[in-house]
Formats: sequence, structure tokens, C-alpha cells
Amino acid sequence: MSGADGASAPSRADRLAQRLPERELDALLVSDLVNLRYLTGFTGTNGLALVGADGERTFLTDFRYLDQAEAQVPAEFAQIRGKESLLEDVAPRLAGRVGFDDEHLTVKAHEQLGAAVGEGVALVAAGGLVEELRAVKEPSEIERIARAATIVDEALGALAEAGLAGRTERAVALSLERDLCERGAERESFPIIVAGGAHGALPHASPRDEPIPSGSLVIVDLGAIVEGYCSDCTRTFATGALDGEAAEVYALVLAAQERALQAVRAGAGVVEVDAVAREAIADGGHGERFGHGLGHGVGLEVHERPRLSPRGEGTLAAGNVVTVEPGVYMSGAFGVRIEDLVVVGEEGPEVLSGFPKALVTVA
Amino acid sequence: MSGADGASAPSRADRLAQRLPERELDALLVSDLVNLRYLTGFTGTNGLALVGADGERTFLTDFRYLDQAEAQVPAEFAQIRGKESLLEDVAPRLAGRVGFDDEHLTVKAHEQLGAAVGEGVALVAAGGLVEELRAVKEPSEIERIARAATIVDEALGALAEAGLAGRTERAVALSLERDLCERGAERESFPIIVAGGAHGALPHASPRDEPIPSGSLVIVDLGAIVEGYCSDCTRTFATGALDGEAAEVYALVLAAQERALQAVRAGAGVVEVDAVAREAIADGGHGERFGHGLGHGVGLEVHERPRLSPRGEGTLAAGNVVTVEPGVYMSGAFGVRIEDLVVVGEEGPEVLSGFPKALVTVA
Repeated sequence: MSGADGASAPSRADRLAQRLPERELDALLVSDLVNLRYLTGFTGTNGLALVGADGERTFLTDFRYLDQAEAQVPAEFAQIRGKESLLEDVAPRLAGRVGFDDEHLTVKAHEQLGAAVGEGVALVAAGGLVEELRAVKEPSEIERIARAATIVDEALGALAEAGLAGRTERAVALSLERDLCERGAERESFPIIVAGGAHGALPHASPRDEPIPSGSLVIVDLGAIVEGYCSDCTRTFATGALDGEAAEVYALVLAAQERALQAVRAGAGVVEVDAVAREAIADGGHGERFGHGLGHGVGLEVHERPRLSPRGEGTLAAGNVVTVEPGVYMSGAFGVRIEDLVVVGEEGPEVLSGFPKALVTVA
Repeated sequence: MSGADGASAPSRADRLAQRLPERELDALLVSDLVNLRYLTGFTGTNGLALVGADGERTFLTDFRYLDQAEAQVPAEFAQIRGKESLLEDVAPRLAGRVGFDDEHLTVKAHEQLGAAVGEGVALVAAGGLVEELRAVKEPSEIERIARAATIVDEALGALAEAGLAGRTERAVALSLERDLCERGAERESFPIIVAGGAHGALPHASPRDEPIPSGSLVIVDLGAIVEGYCSDCTRTFATGALDGEAAEVYALVLAAQERALQAVRAGAGVVEVDAVAREAIADGGHGERFGHGLGHGVGLEVHERPRLSPRGEGTLAAGNVVTVEPGVYMSGAFGVRIEDLVVVGEEGPEVLSGFPKALVTVA
């Protein structure tokens, strides 16, 4: 996982270390558990890594995870058994300008760390360094994400066979959850959304014990985890003949989604890609009803960098894996969201989501 | 949920407000989502509350959760539609000494908040205020935790019928997860641990695709969530006749667990209760092999206050709900952990876990 297999490629920790001088850092303390997993493979709930520009590679965990760390963390890291406060255990090892995860470390933990370090140590806010590495996926990461996306495609196919109308949202969500696991997922990547009729107008609806109505729209938003990597996909199904407005909104969202997909390529600005969908929906008269960003990166976390949003920053890079998911939410009536997961390439997107986007009616 | 139903009892927000003067605070900004749920009932993923000693009760969320907040958050809170950075939206409303969740707020968010507030505002680290309220459960909370505990008892009973030896750890964990949901849980309260043989020596083992051996011990640690409230229970099963050491260690852990249970009562020091089990295990010659705390509070989170540990602080209070879970981990051989969930009472514990603790053999 982290190039312990020889000189063929620099490890993730090595690539991180190479980026320290540009931030004028002597070392980076990695405390966020997802960043830690990315760098070291460690999947426990208490660990810390110190990566130095000078070659320091130290990993700390407590008693509970020693055997696990031995098995997971590559030999480039020296392993130290800490007590429960790993920040206090690592403090004596720090020297110079030491970056920390300010996007993750709490104010309290930062204060404890500050009280424990020696005189010459400067703690420097340095969030995002590992996240920036994570945003550009390696082939082995894309392969896992693609498997997680395929599992969702299959589960949606089975759902279309099993039917929707008359089942409760909760029963559908629960059966999807099981189905993901039976098809090889570790688990779902977030609580599955099944939102029928007016409930679909809440973009983050929780499944209810309410039967899904006929002749309406149902938003189904789900993802799987395969070897730690997430997928994310939304489809909106019809449960019978729709009135004109629902069908029109569906067509509008689909057109916006497909136009935005065509804009996804290396070098495209995240604000500009978002704007492609946003303008299409505004032109259709529903600009006020698309209140969230167009998409987000997906990897070890279901929401990570980059962010496709009017408030995002920067450009897409080849190897980013992002969602493209415009939606229109008609308060009190219904919602439509259509979401694909795509790999950003030099020439355009490679779409990982394979389930049809033309309106599927599932009675 | 939060006394909007009249003058009968002060709401949780009112009880929080009553505690602000002792910390010399004019208001508390509640940003942690679990604390927010406790105070307001809100279950979305972006929200913020401001509770003032002067009666201010403000709740902020973004576009995605407006309908949900309308339905969940009681009328004592004025609701404001924020943008995506709720901290920046709330900043102009702050005045005087304003506490914040320093145990949860990140260094970066704190800096953003500091940059956005007006001149006369002092941001004061005030973590733990809501957590201290949460640690003492109301009857309605205990009732939900008890239901979550009963679901686990039933699932363990079904597991004892279904068998363990020869099934993979992962298959057992997956079937337990389903079973919890079928019995009415929202979901499991943490990733279920099923750890057979030597794998049981890792206190936080992840289930593997490995068959559970016969004639060994298997640690099964699981919890359910009912209406947001967690349970937590561990049993160690035998999968056939055990060698003498495994049986002895089981008996030692059970004796330590039962002695510690007897020490659980209002007013008992958390360090002292922990020490009861720790000394019993040390007397049995395995003191070095019990490397974690005796237990922890359980409620909206599966780990919350109080903490029963050599490094814990304070005393137990009536209405605390805690685990009592000593373990002994024999590296390379097996592990034993036995965990009950108990309500702290004036005279002793009310044990919510009902599955037998005498060694159960499940072939």
C-alpha cells in the first residue's frame, strides 16, 4: 500500500515528505485517522504518524492495536507503543516547524499538544497536505472504487426487479444495505437515502416507515465500501405514470447532469463545471431549487477533495474521482437528483456508474 | 424531546443555559452534531445552535435541512437559514463571552470563527457542558438504551442457536448486523467484532474471512441503535472443550467483571471502580494483559462520559449508563472480554444486558 515493496515508486509517505519544504515544514504530524490510513494502511481508531523531511517515519498506537499495526503498517515506519494520549507521547520527538492537521485537530487537542512540546517547536497549521495527495487516485484505488460502483449498479438492478411502490422507504433502504453486503461490500458508504414523493424534496432525507406512493418519484442515493474505498450513486425512479411537471423536471436534471459530465476533464475549474449544471437548471426555471454543490471527491471518504461547487477552489486533475449530481427539489411535491461517479481524465470523464439514467419506472 | 411541551420541566436548552453563569459565559455555541441532536432533536449533518443565558435560542442550518429542522427542532429555538459556513453566519449574533465546543471544534474552524466575530466577543473554550448533561440520562433515554440492549440479547440468543465454529468471522458479523435490524434496530452502534482464537487477543479486531476454529474462544462485541441511542455488549463464547488456561482466564475475567459490577453505584469514583476489576485480574496474574479502561458511558454515542479508567475523573452519578467490560488478551492464543451495560443507581447497578455470562459453548 505504501511503497514498502522496493525502489519502484516512492511511498505515499515519501511523496508527502517531498511536499514539506514548500510549506517550510520540518515534519508533519498526521492525526486524522483517514489520512493515517492512507499513509500507513492502519485501520484502528487510535494512531498517529510523524513524517519528517529528513526521513523520519514514526507510527504510534496504543496497546489495543499493536498486533494490528504490526500487520498493517509498512516497515518504513518505526513503531512506538504509546499510552492513550498519543499526542503527548509524540511531543518529545518533535523539533523545528511541525505541521499539524488543523482541519481535523480539535482546539483542545492542539492546546494539549502545545503544552507538551519543547521550547524550540513551532506548531504550524498545515491541513490539506495529505488530502491533496488523496485527491489524485492511484490505479489500485480507482479499481476499488470501480468495484464499489459496480456493486451499487447491481443493487439498483435488483431493486428495479423487486419493486418500490407500496414498500416502505425503510424496508427498501434495509434491503439495499443487505444487498450491497451480499454483493461483496464491506458496508454502505453512508446511510442510504430512499425518499419518495414529497419526502424527496429533502436532499438529505432519512428513510421513513412510510409506504412509497405510486405515480411519484423516488430518490435512491447509496454507496458501497470495498477495501476501504467508497462509491456514491443516485438515481430517481418513477413509480408509475407521472404528471407533466415531474417528468419535465426529471428531463431538466438529466440534461444538466449530462452537460456537466461533458465539462469534467483535467484542468477544468471546479466552479466552472458546477456552473454548467447550475446554468442549465436556471435556464429551465428552477435555479433556486438546486441548493447544493454539483459534486465532491470520493475515495476513502465519501466526501473528500475536490469539491465541485460555486464556493469550490482550483481545477480538476487527472485521477480525481468525483460525483456529478445536480438536483431539483420541489418543496411539498417531489425531488429529482441524478448522480454519477466519474474518474477525471485528460480528455474527459470515465463514468463508473453504469445504471441507466433514462427515467426508469418501477411500480 | 426538549421540553417544548409546557412548563412541566425545563428543556435541555434551559438546563444548559442555567449552567452558563458558573463558567462565566453569556452564551454557548453548540457545533458538535451529537450535542446538537441532544439539545434540539436535529439529526442532519450541518447545524449549529446558540444558547444564551439571557434566553437566546437560535438554530441555524442550510438549505438542505430546512424542512427537516422545521419538523425536528422545538419552537423554543428561532430558526435561521444559513449558508454553508454556519459559523460565519452566526458570528454577527455573538456578543460577550461565548463558549465553544473545544473538544470538537477544529483549529481551523475556530480560526475562521475568530476572524468573523466582532470586537467585543471573547471565544472561550467550554467543552463538556452538553456532554455533562448527556451523561445523566432521562427515563426516556434509558428506555431506548434498554430496548437497544434487549435487541442485542435476542441476537446473541439467535447466534447461540445458529452456531459459530466453521463459519467465518465476517459471515457471523454480517448475520448479526442483519439480525439487529430485523429486530428493530436502526443499525449497529459500531462495527461488530467477531474474533476467534488468537484473533481475539486483538481487543479491537475486525472480522476476517477466516473460519472460527473449534475448541477455542470467540469474542463477540456488538451494539444496536434504537431511536438514536446505543447499546454495547460483549460475550465470549467457547466453540468446544477448552484447554485449562482458556477456561481459567474466562473464570478470572468473569469474577473481575462481577466484582466491578458490585462497585458501580452513585458516588463511587470512576478510578476506584476500574481498580476493582484491575486488581482482581492482577491478582490472577494477568494484570499486564488488561490494557484498556474498564468501561465508558453509552447514550447517543457508544463512547461518551463518564469514563471508567485509571485515567478517568470524578464519580458516578445516578442515571449514568456505563459499560463494565474487563478483558484479558493472551497474544497469539486467545482473548476474553465480558461486557455488561448498566444504569447507575443510588444503591447499585441496574444491569441492562440479559444474556448469560456463564461460559456458553456454541459448536
